[in-house]
Amino acid sequence: MTTTGLTNDVSLDVVADLAAQLRVDSIRSSTSAGSGHPTSSMSAADLLAVLVSRHLRYDWEDPRSPLNDHLIFSKGHASPLLYAVFKAVGVVSEDELINGYRRFGQRLEGHPTPVLPWVDVATGSLGQGLPDGVGVALAGRYLERLPYRVWVLCGDSEMAEGSIWEALDKASYYKLSNLIAILDVNRLGQRGATDLGWDTAAYAERAMAFGARTIEIDGHDLSVIDHAFVEAASHVAGDKPTLIIAKTIKGKGFSEVENALDWHGKPFPPDMADRAIAELGGVRSLVIRGAHPQPAEPGPVLQHPSTLPQQPGDAPQPSKEPPIYKTGEKVATRKAYGDALVALGARDPKVVALDGEVSNSTYAYEFARAFPERYFEMFIAEQQMIAAATGLAVRGYKSFASTFAAFFTRAYDFIRMGAVSGVDLRLVGSHAGVEIGADGPSQMALEDLAMMRAVHGSTVLYPADGTSTAALVAAMAETPGISYMRTTRGSYPGLYAHGEAFPVGGSKTLRSGPTDQVTLIGAGVTLHECLRAADLLTADGIAARVIDCYSVKPIDVGALTAAVVDTAGRIVVAEDHHPEGGLGAAVADALLEAGQRDFRLTRLAVREMPGSGTGAELLAWAGVDAEHIADAARQLTKSP
Amino acid sequence: MTTTGLTNDVSLDVVADLAAQLRVDSIRSSTSAGSGHPTSSMSAADLLAVLVSRHLRYDWEDPRSPLNDHLIFSKGHASPLLYAVFKAVGVVSEDELINGYRRFGQRLEGHPTPVLPWVDVATGSLGQGLPDGVGVALAGRYLERLPYRVWVLCGDSEMAEGSIWEALDKASYYKLSNLIAILDVNRLGQRGATDLGWDTAAYAERAMAFGARTIEIDGHDLSVIDHAFVEAASHVAGDKPTLIIAKTIKGKGFSEVENALDWHGKPFPPDMADRAIAELGGVRSLVIRGAHPQPAEPGPVLQHPSTLPQQPGDAPQPSKEPPIYKTGEKVATRKAYGDALVALGARDPKVVALDGEVSNSTYAYEFARAFPERYFEMFIAEQQMIAAATGLAVRGYKSFASTFAAFFTRAYDFIRMGAVSGVDLRLVGSHAGVEIGADGPSQMALEDLAMMRAVHGSTVLYPADGTSTAALVAAMAETPGISYMRTTRGSYPGLYAHGEAFPVGGSKTLRSGPTDQVTLIGAGVTLHECLRAADLLTADGIAARVIDCYSVKPIDVGALTAAVVDTAGRIVVAEDHHPEGGLGAAVADALLEAGQRDFRLTRLAVREMPGSGTGAELLAWAGVDAEHIADAARQLTKSP
Repeated sequence: MTTTGLTNDVSLDVVADLAAQLRVDSIRSSTSAGSGHPTSSMSAADLLAVLVSRHLRYDWEDPRSPLNDHLIFSKGHASPLLYAVFKAVGVVSEDELINGYRRFGQRLEGHPTPVLPWVDVATGSLGQGLPDGVGVALAGRYLERLPYRVWVLCGDSEMAEGSIWEALDKASYYKLSNLIAILDVNRLGQRGATDLGWDTAAYAERAMAFGARTIEIDGHDLSVIDHAFVEAASHVAGDKPTLIIAKTIKGKGFSEVENALDWHGKPFPPDMADRAIAELGGVRSLVIRGAHPQPAEPGPVLQHPSTLPQQPGDAPQPSKEPPIYKTGEKVATRKAYGDALVALGARDPKVVALDGEVSNSTYAYEFARAFPERYFEMFIAEQQMIAAATGLAVRGYKSFASTFAAFFTRAYDFIRMGAVSGVDLRLVGSHAGVEIGADGPSQMALEDLAMMRAVHGSTVLYPADGTSTAALVAAMAETPGISYMRTTRGSYPGLYAHGEAFPVGGSKTLRSGPTDQVTLIGAGVTLHECLRAADLLTADGIAARVIDCYSVKPIDVGALTAAVVDTAGRIVVAEDHHPEGGLGAAVADALLEAGQRDFRLTRLAVREMPGSGTGAELLAWAGVDAEHIADAARQLTKSP
Repeated sequence: MTTTGLTNDVSLDVVADLAAQLRVDSIRSSTSAGSGHPTSSMSAADLLAVLVSRHLRYDWEDPRSPLNDHLIFSKGHASPLLYAVFKAVGVVSEDELINGYRRFGQRLEGHPTPVLPWVDVATGSLGQGLPDGVGVALAGRYLERLPYRVWVLCGDSEMAEGSIWEALDKASYYKLSNLIAILDVNRLGQRGATDLGWDTAAYAERAMAFGARTIEIDGHDLSVIDHAFVEAASHVAGDKPTLIIAKTIKGKGFSEVENALDWHGKPFPPDMADRAIAELGGVRSLVIRGAHPQPAEPGPVLQHPSTLPQQPGDAPQPSKEPPIYKTGEKVATRKAYGDALVALGARDPKVVALDGEVSNSTYAYEFARAFPERYFEMFIAEQQMIAAATGLAVRGYKSFASTFAAFFTRAYDFIRMGAVSGVDLRLVGSHAGVEIGADGPSQMALEDLAMMRAVHGSTVLYPADGTSTAALVAAMAETPGISYMRTTRGSYPGLYAHGEAFPVGGSKTLRSGPTDQVTLIGAGVTLHECLRAADLLTADGIAARVIDCYSVKPIDVGALTAAVVDTAGRIVVAEDHHPEGGLGAAVADALLEAGQRDFRLTRLAVREMPGSGTGAELLAWAGVDAEHIADAARQLTKSP
C-alpha cells in the first residue's frame, strides 16, 4: 500500500491517479456484489478525488471530531464511489471493499447509512441529502459556530424533487455559506435522460434565483474542479450557499459505457469489468488523505434571520421548572407543549426547535421567543423541517419539530429515512383529528398514529392534559429514535397533579373499582369522552374502568391485560383517528401479543370522511364521543 | 337581487363593486361562522373579481361541461372568497353563504372540497392546488385537447413548499400554456412575514428559471389585473405556463387590519365586521357571470416531451387480452403489472399512466411504449406524480401511478388529500420489503401497507403471482377511491391458472384439507414462503392450510374465520413489512371485528432495521421465511 500524501498539497497528477482508482474500485466492488451503480459513481469520481485529496478537512482517525468537514452523498446510489473514497483514505480495507459491499451483515450497504462512522445520514431516497446538509450547516453556523464546511454531492435526477428547492431556499435564507453542494450533471437518470439534460445553465439559473452562488464547471477537468473548490471555500465567509454545477459523463473512463443509456444501476459483468479496469490503468492502492481541520474555538453568536423580535412579555431568563397546571383547569395540550419546551430549553442547551410556519398554533413560538437563537423557522416546508431536524441531530442537538399533525404526512419519507439514519427526532403534531372542527378534513390528522407507529423503533405519545404533556415532552428529550407526540387543539380539564410520573410505555387508570364491568380506553381528546361516558354509565349502575393510554407505542400491556381480567374482557377503545393502525389497533395488537383471548373489543374510530362542524358535533358524528362510548359499553355488558 | 351582466363585458366600475362584495361577503361568512380567513380572502378579492366577471369561461349551470375553464384555489384557506364568488355568480344563496359556512352537515366546508360541484379538488394542505392543476392542464392539452384554461390561485406562503416547484418544473416541461397561476403576494403568513415578503421580483426570477412566463402586477389595480389576464390568455397558444405575480395587501379594504400581523385565520368580531362592511360600502347582491365557453372540438394530437421513441419490439396494436402466465413459470408481479396495464390500456382509452423515473423497474415503461400519448413521465417528483394523477382523474381519466413502494411515502399528504378530493387513484409500488435485498433499507417499503390502509376508503392489494396481479390490475380500473397495489421485485412461480377470478376483498386458499391443524397466511413474497413452509410441515406430519391474502383491505373475513374454526384457531401470518398496520394487523382486526375470540395468532414481520443482503438472507434474518413460518406453526400445534 502506497501512502502518497497526508496533506492537501497532493499534486493534480496524483489526483488523476486517485480518480482512476476511485473508478476502478467502484467497478470492482459493484461487479463483485453483482449489483450497484458504477456508472453513477464514475461520473463523480474526478470531483471526489479533488475534494478528498485537496479540500476536505477531515481527521479520518477521529470521525466524531466537531471540527471535521461533512461529506454527504445526496446521490446515495453512488455508494461505490463513497466506499472507494473510504478505501482511498485508508479507513476501509481492500477486502471489505470488494467482499463486503452489499453483503448480508456487512456495513457497506447498498446505499450509505451511519452504520459507518464517516456517514452522517442515510441517503438513497433522493432529494434528502442536501436538505439534511442544511441542518448540519445550520448547526455549524449558528449553534456550534465552527468553521467546518458541509459538502454535499447531488445527482441531477434528484433536482426534480421539490425538497431540493426547499433546501436551497432555506440555505439562502439562513445564509449558509458553509454549505457547498456539488451537482453531478451526468445527464442520464435511471430510465433515460433527465428533464434538463446537460443544460447546466438552466440549473444555474434556478439555483441563483433561489439565492445560491453557482459555479459551472467541466466535472472532469481536475484543475477546473480544484479552482471551483477554492472559490467555493473562499466564500464560506460570505452569506450564500454555493452550488458547483459540474457537467460530467456517466460511466466516464470506460469508453464502452460512457454517456450510454441502459447502464444505470447495473454492475459490469466480469469480462467488461476487466476491460474497464484495463482502460483505466489497472488496480491501484493509493492512500491519500487531505489536511486535518485546524483547531478552532466557536465564533461569535450570529443572529439568524428567523429570530423573533423581543416582545414586552418575554422573560429574559425563562424558568427551568416544568409548567404547573391545576387539575380541573382547562389547558390545551399544544399550549402545554410550548410551555414544557421552554422549560426544557432552559434546562438543556442542546434542545432546539423548528416549526413549519404555524408556531403560533403549535405553541413552538413560545420557545422561539425564549430562545430565538435555537429556533429555526422552516416556513411551509415540512420536508425541509424534518431534514433540518435530522441534520441538527447529527450534530448532537435535540431537535423538536412541530406542525399540524396532518402535515407530517408531507414528510413521511424524511421521517422514515430519519429512522434509517438512526437519529433521534422529536415530532409534535397539533390539531389532530375531527376535534379541530370547522377547518375540515384537509387539516384533520386521521392517519398520523398509523403512520408514526409503523416507523421502525418509534415512540408514539398522545397525552390528554397539560401535566402529562409536560412530563412527556421532557421524556421525549431522553427518548431515542423517532418520537411523536400528538397534541390537541381544544382546551380540556387538567387530570393529573403536578409531579406525577408518566413513563413512556405506561398508562394511567383514572377510574377503577372492585365492581368494574367494562374498561374504557382513550387517549387525548377521547380520554375526556371516556371519563364523561363513565359518568353516564354510573348513572345506569355500570361501573367502568377508564384508562389513559397516553403512550400508544410502546403501550402498557400490563394495564391492558389487567383490565381484560378485571372487567370480564369487555373493552371499548375510542380514538379520533381512522380505524386502521391507531390506538384501537395498538390495543388489539398488544392484547393478542400478550396471549389474551378472552376479550371483546369494541373499537370506535372515525370511519367516514368528515366535513366541518364543531369539535363536539364531529366527535358525535364519528361515534367517538361519550354517548357512543357509553352505548358501546352498555352493549358489551349486556352479553356475558 | 341585481343581475348586472351575463357576458364578459362587465365594466371595471362594476368589477370594483363586485370586488367590494367579495370582501364584504368573505367577512360576513367568516364572522358568522366564528372562524375562517377573511384577510387572506380580501387580498385576492380584486384578482377574483376581474377573473370571474371578465375572463373565466364557465357555464355555472353545467359545472361538468368539458369546455369549462377550471378554477382551483391552491390557497384553500381563502374559502370565504371562493364561496363569495359562488354567491356572486348565483350558484350559492345568501342564506347558504352566511349560515352554511363551516357548519356541520353543510357543503361550504372550512377548506374547499368537491362536495361542491364547482370545486375540482380538495385544497387546504398548501402547495397542492397548483400541482393538481398541472394534471388538469395535462389532460386539457394532450388528452382532451380542449381550449379550457386552468386558473390556479396560489398563496405566497405556499411557495415555500417544494411541490410548487415540482409543479412549475413539470408545467414548463410539458409546455402547459393552458395553466395560469395567480400568486397572491400579500406578504404575511400565519405567524409573520413570509420568507420573501413583497419581493415579487424574487418570485418572478424563480418562476422564470423554472420555465414559466411571469407577469408582475399590482394586485389591487383592476385595469392592470385585467390586462394581465388578457396577456396570460393570449399566450395560451404558446408553450409556457404563466405565473401572474400580484403584489397585494392582506386585509385590503378594511383599514384596521390592512397589512397587519396577527390577523391571519381570524374572523372579525361582529363590531369590527360592521365597521369593515361600512368601510367597504355595505352589503351588495350583485350577480355577475362572465362568458360561457365556446363550443369546441378536440384539437390535433400533440406529441408530448416524455414520449418514448418507438422501439423495434413495440407492437403497433397492443393486445387487449390480459397476459397469460403459466402456473409454475416464474414471473415478477411488477412485470405482470406492466403487461396487464398495456392490455387494460388497449381496452380502455381512459387509462393513463405516470411514473417517477423508474418505469423500467416498475414496468410502467411497457405502457409508455405502447401508449406514449397516455403516459406522463414525472421524473423523480413523487408529489407531483400523485397530483398529476389527481388532476387527470378530475377530468375522468383512470390514472395509474407507479414508483418504488418506499417512495410513495414521499407523497402521503397528496394521497391523503386525494381521498378528501374523492378521486379514484391507482397506485402501484414495486420493490417492497426486505425481499429487494442488496439495495438496503432506503429502498425497502416497510410502512406502505400501514400507510395505505389508513387512508379513508382505500383498497390495498398485494398479489403473489402474475395471474392474480393481472386480474387485480383490471379490478383496480373499476375500484373507486385510492387503490394501492404492492408488487415484488423478484420472480416467483405462477400459482393460478389463467381466467381465475380475484375479486377485491377475496382470498385464495391454496392448501387445505380435513386434517388441517394450522393456517398459514401470506401475501406477495411471503405467500411463497408459506407454501414452502407447508411443505416443510407436511414432512413433519402437520397439515397446514395456506391462504393467499391478496386483498389486504378489504380482507376476506369469511376465509379467515373459517380458518380459525377449521384449524383450531391456530394462525400464522408472515409479512415483509413492519409489524404495525400491515397484513398481520389486518388479519387481527378482521378476526376481532368478526367476533372471533378463540384463536392464537403468531405474527411474523420485519422487526429490526435491515441492511443489505440477498432477498433470501433478509427474509430469513427477519424471521418471515418458510423455516420461521414452519417453526411458528409447530409451536402453535404443540399447545392445544
